[in-house]
Amino acid sequence: MAASETSNKRHISIYDTTLREGSQCVGISLTLADKISLCLELDRLGVDFIEGGLAGSSPKDDAFYTEMQGKKLSGAKLVAFGQTVKSGMKPSEDRMLKALCDAGTEYVSVFGKTSAVQAKEVLGVSPEDNVKMISDTVDYLVKTGKKVFFDAEHYFDGFKANPDYSIRCISAALSSGAFKIVLCDTNGGVLPFEIEEIIEKTLRNVPSLRGNFGIHVHNDSGTADYSTVLAARLSADVAQVAVNGWGERCGNANLFTVVPNLSLKLGFDTIPDLSVLYDFAHRFCETANVKMWEFSPFVGKHAFSHKAGVHIDAVRKYSSAYEHVAPESVGNSRKFMLSEQAGRAAVIAKVDELLPKLGFSISDAGVIVDKIKELELLGYRFEGADASFEMLVKDILGIRKSWFHLNTYKVVVFDSDDAKAHSENDKSGVTASAIVDVTVDNRREITADNGIGPVDALDKALRKALTSFYPSIANMYLVDYKVRVLESKLATASVVRVVVESSDGKKNWCTVGVSGDIIKASFDALVDSYTFMLDNNLGSS
Amino acid sequence: MAASETSNKRHISIYDTTLREGSQCVGISLTLADKISLCLELDRLGVDFIEGGLAGSSPKDDAFYTEMQGKKLSGAKLVAFGQTVKSGMKPSEDRMLKALCDAGTEYVSVFGKTSAVQAKEVLGVSPEDNVKMISDTVDYLVKTGKKVFFDAEHYFDGFKANPDYSIRCISAALSSGAFKIVLCDTNGGVLPFEIEEIIEKTLRNVPSLRGNFGIHVHNDSGTADYSTVLAARLSADVAQVAVNGWGERCGNANLFTVVPNLSLKLGFDTIPDLSVLYDFAHRFCETANVKMWEFSPFVGKHAFSHKAGVHIDAVRKYSSAYEHVAPESVGNSRKFMLSEQAGRAAVIAKVDELLPKLGFSISDAGVIVDKIKELELLGYRFEGADASFEMLVKDILGIRKSWFHLNTYKVVVFDSDDAKAHSENDKSGVTASAIVDVTVDNRREITADNGIGPVDALDKALRKALTSFYPSIANMYLVDYKVRVLESKLATASVVRVVVESSDGKKNWCTVGVSGDIIKASFDALVDSYTFMLDNNLGSS
Repeated sequence: MAASETSNKRHISIYDTTLREGSQCVGISLTLADKISLCLELDRLGVDFIEGGLAGSSPKDDAFYTEMQGKKLSGAKLVAFGQTVKSGMKPSEDRMLKALCDAGTEYVSVFGKTSAVQAKEVLGVSPEDNVKMISDTVDYLVKTGKKVFFDAEHYFDGFKANPDYSIRCISAALSSGAFKIVLCDTNGGVLPFEIEEIIEKTLRNVPSLRGNFGIHVHNDSGTADYSTVLAARLSADVAQVAVNGWGERCGNANLFTVVPNLSLKLGFDTIPDLSVLYDFAHRFCETANVKMWEFSPFVGKHAFSHKAGVHIDAVRKYSSAYEHVAPESVGNSRKFMLSEQAGRAAVIAKVDELLPKLGFSISDAGVIVDKIKELELLGYRFEGADASFEMLVKDILGIRKSWFHLNTYKVVVFDSDDAKAHSENDKSGVTASAIVDVTVDNRREITADNGIGPVDALDKALRKALTSFYPSIANMYLVDYKVRVLESKLATASVVRVVVESSDGKKNWCTVGVSGDIIKASFDALVDSYTFMLDNNLGSS
Repeated sequence: MAASETSNKRHISIYDTTLREGSQCVGISLTLADKISLCLELDRLGVDFIEGGLAGSSPKDDAFYTEMQGKKLSGAKLVAFGQTVKSGMKPSEDRMLKALCDAGTEYVSVFGKTSAVQAKEVLGVSPEDNVKMISDTVDYLVKTGKKVFFDAEHYFDGFKANPDYSIRCISAALSSGAFKIVLCDTNGGVLPFEIEEIIEKTLRNVPSLRGNFGIHVHNDSGTADYSTVLAARLSADVAQVAVNGWGERCGNANLFTVVPNLSLKLGFDTIPDLSVLYDFAHRFCETANVKMWEFSPFVGKHAFSHKAGVHIDAVRKYSSAYEHVAPESVGNSRKFMLSEQAGRAAVIAKVDELLPKLGFSISDAGVIVDKIKELELLGYRFEGADASFEMLVKDILGIRKSWFHLNTYKVVVFDSDDAKAHSENDKSGVTASAIVDVTVDNRREITADNGIGPVDALDKALRKALTSFYPSIANMYLVDYKVRVLESKLATASVVRVVVESSDGKKNWCTVGVSGDIIKASFDALVDSYTFMLDNNLGSS
């Protein structure tokens, strides 16, 4: 049982491969600046080792190592990545090994095949030559003063076919002075019970590895995270992981799943502070410009979201009813989702949270649940848009204040060779202009502005119209703008849902709009956002 | 080792809970028609049991059971879902149990707490009363002629705290005639090695369960799929799973990961034909209107996508270099991704695939790689847009045919009370109109049309202009339209990437456009799509 292990404070080194394997994930394309930024963030998070890109493979990766030589990491060690020497070549003649040494790191990692069939089929070399390539490479790097991780590529598959040969390969690396052997399930196809059997057999054959080896697993069978945790239980002291599980195909073991399992469940020592995990997981996504998977264990936005009425009810009584760890332990938070399944109790809980002073009856809650059901059918979702939900409640209760009346708006988008010559914002030659006509306190205001695209033009024109009445609007800005195409079978005539996130620098709020017209949907979300801001007296200095 | 188990043809029943737990997943909101459609699809896929919604909880779920009484499933058994009797009530007086019986299914499933602390904290009942509620409920349902699955809620957590009590609960259900006990890790926090220990202890205490119990695991620790597979190895014969792992919080065990692991890796008998898995996984997403996670094991779009040049090179020589199973075995396919990491070899492979007759040099490939890098910086991705990639190659080689010249376009979006009164398409009161001005063969054509939103209006106007020259365009239609906001920190002034999928009913193709203006980005993608169609003589009848 886990309980008996909670006193186990053995340190498991977290070896992050995001900058190398993570950038091989479909959809990720890191600039040099991204790489440096991610590297410094990983150091702040408190990982032990950070693997950079394949040295010598691109000017960008080499520039990364050069830039990093001028920067100081607070605790992490940078590891340059390379591969065994080319067949028939001396290590000192190999251009890639030279680049690896030139990276200027104390630690390097080289991968080499530890499967006879892979060596033959992919490298075209004999089993003997492959072992020699491993020895020669590690030997050369150790003599140049490097501490060498040897990534035993295809170790588990190789072992299943021919255990003696795989053991011979890692023994060669060890004899040549490798600092650490990393056992790799490169194809991610080996199930944990097999991983366990093979590690146990390996430790019996090579006792010096006990308590002293690394693990690197891919997620093609959906078991990478557990195999990594399992290896730590079997005495591995280095876990190779990537941020959010990024990597080739289905990705690598996920730092944000492996670390809390090791620390919170098994009592290992990993990174110093787990309460920052949620923020870091999301920040890395921003830096890499990819979407965070909302259902990720521990750090997904919805890892602690409750939707069924019976769950919401139970968790309010007793949090362990449907939570395996406290959300705060990883910096996440509990969320109650508003949906047709939530029921009245959940709506009352949400309104109590948003509008604590409001007198509110069970029959009001019933009307709101019905309205939510009706709007969900049209494509609305209030799950992530608390500010629009607040507007909806006020509408239904007849207490929504009208800060302005929209008479009309017009948007014109224009593409021509003439515009190309004169456009300031955008060399695409497109001009977007908007006219907004509003009335506030019986005073009519007609404004216009240009923008980068029609929604930006509308936002600027509306802001111009309202700021003269409500100066605090100048302190509000848009943080995020998301578009989801619903019923996409209708293609360009689809219904779209737009979610706008706004901020006054202190508080952020989200609003939603839905329409067949993306401009109308965006505009509705903007109007809700301005209204919410004025209602709550936000943006005042 | 797995090899020794490949002759194991024991059948594991696949029990799907998508219609019940799956609909508790954030973002999923199923209509009655969706539920019926998913149920029939699950039957076609070949699962053994299909769990519907909580009987008596909503008119929709009750209507579902009523509708299903009039339909015939080819092999699957429908299971109505409910819970143990309310404390202090007779089963015959319990409204929810009445609804469960009225569902009219041969099989029912009831969940009951098998943890003393959960019974006390959530239900407010004593351990003794909780056991009585379990016995009374199962007894009553069995006497009405039902075959009863007993979902032992919180079994593993309960067992860790008090094994005797958890065993007492399931023994009570068994004595009352339950058809099958399902051991549940309700909170998803129990790691597989603990699952294994607890199952083994349970089987020693209740030998009649050996070879005869179910497993239901949540994914809060990222280990649900493996725990499910592990339980089958420990003799479970029912695996509760949901389509794509949908469920509360981080979801349930994923049908599409569990089934291929059981069948392909361990040789169990599950569903009859695994080669349909990819299509079904994606079709379910369409029906439920949610996004498929592209990195899902086995059935994710990118489960067999290779991006690093060294991987692409190796897989072309020897597929097992970086693939754990054949992609075709689950209906998936190998993909080589075009990116700055792909290198010249990958570009040449892709061009060979798309334009096999084209004479093409290594230096051309270099120019294309450079251009891809440049466009990726602007926000383009060719990974999913082969038709735009083909246009790009033709542009670079100077062989792109100009089917039409665009002189200019204008779009007007107009919102007013007047429009509300007259709009046919959309009661939102928004009118979108587009004017397109093109020249073909020295003949100028100016057309206009209205649409649902500006992109639809533009598409219709352009189509009108071109169809008179190229009648085959009438046979082409848009299948999908996706918008991704890049650099979303700029909010409404962000750069957007639009991907348009088009079809002529036989072939589908994808094109991409990127701009600060969503209309310009959409228009560029449409122009590429029409050009690709005309280039390839598609849409001709």
